[in-house]
Amino acid sequence: MARKLHYFDTNGIAESVRYMLHYAKQKFEDVRYDYQSWPVEQVKKSLPFGQLPLYEEGSKSLYQSVAIARYIGAVHNLIPADIWEQAQLDAIVLSVYDFWSKVIAYVTEQDIVKKQELKKEIFGELIDFYFSRFENQLKNNKGFFGGKLSWADFVFVGIIEAVNLRLGEQIESKYPHVAALVEKIRNLPGVKEYIVSKKPYVL
Amino acid sequence: MARKLHYFDTNGIAESVRYMLHYAKQKFEDVRYDYQSWPVEQVKKSLPFGQLPLYEEGSKSLYQSVAIARYIGAVHNLIPADIWEQAQLDAIVLSVYDFWSKVIAYVTEQDIVKKQELKKEIFGELIDFYFSRFENQLKNNKGFFGGKLSWADFVFVGIIEAVNLRLGEQIESKYPHVAALVEKIRNLPGVKEYIVSKKPYVL
Repeated sequence: MARKLHYFDTNGIAESVRYMLHYAKQKFEDVRYDYQSWPVEQVKKSLPFGQLPLYEEGSKSLYQSVAIARYIGAVHNLIPADIWEQAQLDAIVLSVYDFWSKVIAYVTEQDIVKKQELKKEIFGELIDFYFSRFENQLKNNKGFFGGKLSWADFVFVGIIEAVNLRLGEQIESKYPHVAALVEKIRNLPGVKEYIVSKKPYVL
Repeated sequence: MARKLHYFDTNGIAESVRYMLHYAKQKFEDVRYDYQSWPVEQVKKSLPFGQLPLYEEGSKSLYQSVAIARYIGAVHNLIPADIWEQAQLDAIVLSVYDFWSKVIAYVTEQDIVKKQELKKEIFGELIDFYFSRFENQLKNNKGFFGGKLSWADFVFVGIIEAVNLRLGEQIESKYPHVAALVEKIRNLPGVKEYIVSKKPYVL
């Protein structure tokens, strides 16, 4: 059964899925679209809600990056069996996405005054608000959300890298447990080789 | 074990959880905060990311409305066993939340010109973009997302009611399968009695 992941040629909200698939040694076609020439109308129209990523298994398809990442995590044993523990990881991932949506709001803001306000909020408040909490979670759970490597760790690191690319920062640098998790994920077998093999992302 | 749901005294992003708990005949304490006097600093500080809802079971707590709703769904047999089918419902719920976040962006916008633009986008494009797709999904799946009553149906109806309250509309009225699902959920045993028993929500 052919597996395909459709996304832009950047990290964004799909790099965690690529990382998990490489870590799991799962063969898949990594279909990439040039962001500059998006939307490709024919592709966009074929997407359930007009958005990438899209993941395919044979003739079946799945959309929404969190749904795809969770599914890939479930297939490859990167999710706990207990539903309460699963829910705790869901909450982490959704909080990571809350932070991501604020970064995207800043990056895409056209109004210069408003953009300046959002920048101040992100750098003056939000990064520390979110990352001090993530740091604490990791510190209290042996360096992984939930105490053991899971899809939530992959999503978290994928979003950090996407934020770093867009902000020109290394937002994890002041949070040692976060920084350690980024390094751990980037050095996992499969992930490490994939990172070496690809061109660096540019904006 | 005491169960508590903490949220504002409105439908918002937690009414679906209340509906599911009532439908499942699960006893819980429905703790409600007055939106007008929010933030109550003592409560806000105690929340993992400063946000409601919070769900408690004994001494354990869970945050993020989607994580809570999915968990309650899993406990009460409102989720399919198959992980691919689970993921399809996750994608629906996340798309419902994408729509919700656009409505909230409009409702909370302070700039009059920008607010007018967002209003035009919601009423001129987004409602039909999303709801024609939801309508098709329901039509092709016996009236329920995934073909059988699940947590996704509850979340969908909960968000529709929250949007209707904020927009002063009945956005489901042009989409017969959506409207039918709203009626079905509102008339489920447990949900029906709960709706009758509570005061109508006001903004």
